[in-house]
Formats: sequence, C-alpha cells, structure tokens
Amino acid sequence: MDDFYLNRSLILAEQAISLSSPNPRVGCVLVKNGQIIGEGHTQAAGSAHAEVMAIRNATERGLDATGCTVYVTLEPCSHFGRTPPCVNALKSIQPARVVVALLDVNPQVSGQGVSALRSAGMLVDVLPSSHPIAVATHELNIGFIERMTRGKVYTRLKTAASLDGKTALPDGHSQWITSDAARTDGHRWRARADVIVTGIGTVLHDNPQMNVRGARVAHPPMKCVLDSYARTPLNARLFEDDASVCVVCADLDESHDEHAGQSARLAALCAAHTAVRIVRVPMLNGRVDLAALWVYFHEQSFNEIHVEAGGVLNAALLSARLIDELLIYQAPRVVGAGLPMADFGDALILDDLQKKPNWQWLDVVRLGEDVRLRLRKTQHHNET
Amino acid sequence: MDDFYLNRSLILAEQAISLSSPNPRVGCVLVKNGQIIGEGHTQAAGSAHAEVMAIRNATERGLDATGCTVYVTLEPCSHFGRTPPCVNALKSIQPARVVVALLDVNPQVSGQGVSALRSAGMLVDVLPSSHPIAVATHELNIGFIERMTRGKVYTRLKTAASLDGKTALPDGHSQWITSDAARTDGHRWRARADVIVTGIGTVLHDNPQMNVRGARVAHPPMKCVLDSYARTPLNARLFEDDASVCVVCADLDESHDEHAGQSARLAALCAAHTAVRIVRVPMLNGRVDLAALWVYFHEQSFNEIHVEAGGVLNAALLSARLIDELLIYQAPRVVGAGLPMADFGDALILDDLQKKPNWQWLDVVRLGEDVRLRLRKTQHHNET
Repeated sequence: MDDFYLNRSLILAEQAISLSSPNPRVGCVLVKNGQIIGEGHTQAAGSAHAEVMAIRNATERGLDATGCTVYVTLEPCSHFGRTPPCVNALKSIQPARVVVALLDVNPQVSGQGVSALRSAGMLVDVLPSSHPIAVATHELNIGFIERMTRGKVYTRLKTAASLDGKTALPDGHSQWITSDAARTDGHRWRARADVIVTGIGTVLHDNPQMNVRGARVAHPPMKCVLDSYARTPLNARLFEDDASVCVVCADLDESHDEHAGQSARLAALCAAHTAVRIVRVPMLNGRVDLAALWVYFHEQSFNEIHVEAGGVLNAALLSARLIDELLIYQAPRVVGAGLPMADFGDALILDDLQKKPNWQWLDVVRLGEDVRLRLRKTQHHNET
Repeated sequence: MDDFYLNRSLILAEQAISLSSPNPRVGCVLVKNGQIIGEGHTQAAGSAHAEVMAIRNATERGLDATGCTVYVTLEPCSHFGRTPPCVNALKSIQPARVVVALLDVNPQVSGQGVSALRSAGMLVDVLPSSHPIAVATHELNIGFIERMTRGKVYTRLKTAASLDGKTALPDGHSQWITSDAARTDGHRWRARADVIVTGIGTVLHDNPQMNVRGARVAHPPMKCVLDSYARTPLNARLFEDDASVCVVCADLDESHDEHAGQSARLAALCAAHTAVRIVRVPMLNGRVDLAALWVYFHEQSFNEIHVEAGGVLNAALLSARLIDELLIYQAPRVVGAGLPMADFGDALILDDLQKKPNWQWLDVVRLGEDVRLRLRKTQHHNET
C-alpha cells in the first residue's frame, strides 16, 4: 500500500504548484490503521510545510497521530529556515515509520532529515531514485532541484510551430497554429512558472495577456518583458490583471541618445501601474545582457522560468545556453514562408554532427490535433 | 483463428515489397484441418499472384486443397490481366470458405471477385474495413490504392531534421543529423518505393548512392535525378550498382544557349551507363515541370515514390501539392544557422490559420535517439 499513499502525497504536492515557490512542492499523508488521518501540502513561502499541514489536519479532525505512518514526497527539513524544522514537528507525533519518496538536494537538508528521524527512533524508508514516484517528485521540483544543485534558474522555452518550424505567417499572424488542447496544456506549464518571459517585439505585435487561463493559480506568475528602450505601451493588455510586471530595460548611460526618452517612458509606466518593477541590465550585442538577467532571476530565488517569445529572442536564449527545456507543440501543417521558431541568422549552434545530441527526449505525446515534444538539455556541452 | 491466418497472410504480403509492383502486395494461406497446407505471395508483375502461389505450394507438398479455407489479404482478381483470374484458380480447388481482408479497389475487380466466388458456391467473408488487418493491408498497398482510386502516384517525402528544422549545417554537411536507427528505418521506406527521387544539387553536393542498404530488395528502386541541364557527373556514386537511373532534364529548344551542352552531356551519360533512361520534361518556373513529371511517373504505373532531396526541391514539391506523406526523422539537436528541410523562399503554403490542418498524423514513434513523425495529406484542400 506504500505506493497508494505516496501517490496521494504526490497529488497533494501538485497542489503546491504556483503556491510554494521558492520552496519545493511537497505533499504529506498520515496513515493509521489503514486510514488517512491527515494530509497536506506546502503552503506559501514562510507558511507551513506539508508535514505540519498534515499534522494540523489530523488535529483538526480530532485524531491522534501517534504511531502513524508518514508518507512524504520530499525528505523532511532538519534546519531552521523561515519555519522550524519539519523533523521536529514529526518528532512531536512520534510516528512509527516515515516513507520518503525523494531525498532533498538542498545542502541544508540532504540526508540530514532522514538521519535525524532515525536518531529519534523512527523507521525511515526512502524510495530508490528510479521509482516512478521518486522520478515524478523530481520532475515536479525540477526548478528547485536545479537551483539547489546547479545554481541556475530552470528555463522552459515554449513554442508552437508548424512541421516546417514556423510559428506564424509572414505577417506575424499566429492565432492559432495549434489546437485548443495544445494551448490548454501550454497554460498548465505557464502555471508552474515563477516568471513568464517575452520580448518587446511580441508585446508590440501580439499584445498578449501573458497570464494563466484555464488552470488554477494561487500566485500568478510575474510577467517579464525584455524591453531595452522601455517601449511597452501604457495600455498593454499584460497590465489588465493584477499580476506583477517586470520591465527589463537596458542600463543606458546618460550620454546615450535614447536615455532621456527611456527614463520618461519608465516614469510613465511606473506612474500608471503600481505593480511594475523595473530591472536595469547592461546592454550586450544590441540587447539586454541575457546572462546578467538570468543571474538576477537566480538572485530572486526563482525556480522555473517560462519563455514564450519570438524567433529572435528564442534564438538568442538558445545561443546563450539559457534554455533547459524545450516544450514544442507541433501542428500538422506546412506553412511555407513564415516566421521561424528560432531565428538564428548566421549564428551556428552546433558545429559538428559527430557530437552526441545536445538534447534528450522527455516525452512525445499526441495532444488533440497536435504533437507535443518535450526535451531537456543534456549535461555534456557539445555545442560551439 | 481467422486473425491468426490473416496475420500470416499479411506477413507473406509484406514479402512482395519491392517485387510485385505495379501489382498489389498480397499474401495467401490455405488451411485445412487446422494446418497450413499452402502459402504464397504475389510475384513479379506478369508472374503468379498470391492465390496461385499458395495452391502451387500445396501441390508441391503433395497435399489436396479441396475443401480448404483460403485466407487472402486482398480480394482475388476476376479479370484477365497479364495472368488469368485468381478466381478461376480458386474454383479449381473448390475451397469451402474464403476470408478476404480487404476488397480490391481496382475497378476491374472491386467486389466482382467476391461475387464470382459466391456464385461458385463458396462461403466468402470480408473483414470490416476498420479491422486492424484490413487497415494494415490498405497501408501496405497505399500506393496501389491511390493509383487506382485517385489516379495519382503516392509520394513520400523523407527528411531528417533538427528540432529547429535544419537538415544540414550551413556548409551542407548533413552526415548525420539522425542516429543509426533512424537511417536504418529510412532504408526500409526506400525499399518500398518504385523510384527514389532527388535533385541535381544533392547529387553534386552529397554524391549519394541512392540505393537501399540493410533491407532486402528484389528489384532495387529506380534512381531519379531532377537535372534540368544534365549536370549529373559520369562517375556519380549513384551509378555504382546496377539499378536503373532516370535523368529528368529540361526539354530545351535548340535555340536555348544550354541546348548543345545538355545534349552532349546526355550523350556521354548514355554512352557511359547502359542503365540510364533520359526523360525530357518542359521547363516551368526555372525547373522541370514537376506536375508533368508526376504524370509521367503515373503513366509508368509507379505505386510509391520516395523523395530525399534538398530544401528547395522539397519546398517546390510541397508547393506543387505532389507530396502525400511526410516521413520526418527529428533529431534532439538544435543546429542554429543551417539548411532548412523546406526552403520556401517567399512562397506561402498556408494563408489562413483558421483552416483545418492540411496533414494528419499517421504515427509518432521514438526510434533510437530520434523521433519519427509520419503524416498524410488530408483530402480537403485548405491551402492557398
């Protein structure tokens, strides 16, 4: 029955999407005499973790958790962060056994949680890392794990393209290359992100809302526009809801011709919209320095970034090695002349076909009329 | 048990690949008292059909087929073609029952075979057209069926591309975008074709062998080069085996500057290689008239054409609506600058995204490191 309760924990963990960041998405179930007596998932940062929520849930139901079995997707924390360690909370109910799907990679936890529980006399089982629930827990927290282990912000690039790799007709019209099913799925991936990134070209041309539709979000992702000269219109649709907006502009020196205009436009944006955050980044090769911006994102403890941009920005991000995952919806169409999903100009990404592929398949599925391809960057570095 | 014997018939039918064209690929099994007493498949055109082969097989084994059950993938023919009707052959053994996977679409057969058998007192069962063996029989004979029902030559375009739709590096280097498994699979599709088509650009740049490797072929497909000015080198690798070669050149009038040079080069080609066939086609928009060439292919009773060409010819064939199936091997790579799988220039194929997609998925499978996408053109005409 372990898998049954671990699966339930995983379902609870998924409810922490768009809520718990920068904390991981964790679910917890307390089982006693074959009954679930309490369950919970991570709340917003600074609020209770999954284990505490599950214990509270049992208490609210007037049930005694002593001697129960605890099923938890991620190793309980053993350190004082913004909340006290979950290990202490578990000690308070004296469970007989704790089953953990995945060890925490956070160097402040990483095995110490399990050790602390064992020292307190509990039997602790940890799934092998290849177990489907361990894998699913890893995938659910891929952004958190990459941030902890590799110091980077996991970045997913979403695109919807024709068979010949076009995202829009030559006039830029792209509504819609793909089917309803693909777009709905795309919003589910948006909902996972801390930030949705696009370029000013897309804002000026498509005027997107950049929000999450058709999926429940506790904290809507921040909307981020790469906009060197602050050309985002005051009445852009992305301001229509109350999500925060980050305008990333170039850090122009005062001698730069555009400096005064940029400052005036930024002032107007901030006056018109309270939820606007301005981030200044140096220029590099005619655009904001993408690597510098991603350092900023990392400093903000963002776990997952979702990019939906035009071909030029897509290509720049791929060239800058900032994309970790490709989420490609492929429609059964041939467009012909049109705008490419990634416009590399003369930039070569791969210089030798003898090298091993630089991406690996995560999955390939049919989705309505379309096919969804998901790939992850391989760790080896085979590019030019 | 019908499905068991029909499956065996289908396996036999597959052995007629590269052998029976322009006749369909048909397999036949004779069963008596729960034993297979004879089996066979269509031979080369003008030789025996599957039913006759199965009867001969029983006779060779000294077995009496009277009263047996006949399993045959395609409806037995009832007309005199290059061979006598199979219906007559079946009458000679007086089977108790005949099970047919798919009715023949050939207007000279089409239900008449079944009627003739019933008139002769046999019980005849025909699978519903949605039965997996009926569907597989249809797919195995898609070229024959399309030729009979729509008067066209079923044309499959194969390409191996990166995620960003590139088939080669900017210098044209394309060996190899995809993995061994994908290339082996590609040769299996080549083996089905009557003709493998490419352009002179590919011959001059890649010097391909254009043969079938790693798959058994009774009759190697003809190699066809679209070569307006007859620039195919005398020592091109495609001449290295004894498959016939078709050079399609422009029908230049004698006043055309290139006329004399083309004639001399064609004469040299024919002198150097006995297996060369020259086909002259009028020029249209700076290349040989593709539609006219496909009419020629149809006149030759070709069932399946396999195209492996560069982006310019691929785009021209797609624009001319001559491609019925896309066979795309997609490698988990991002190439960047490179040569596109279809180079449409300014040509728009699709002018309105509100229209239904013009292709439908046949299947999407993982193949070694790569993914294979197969799509078929839809019958409705939604293109510009």
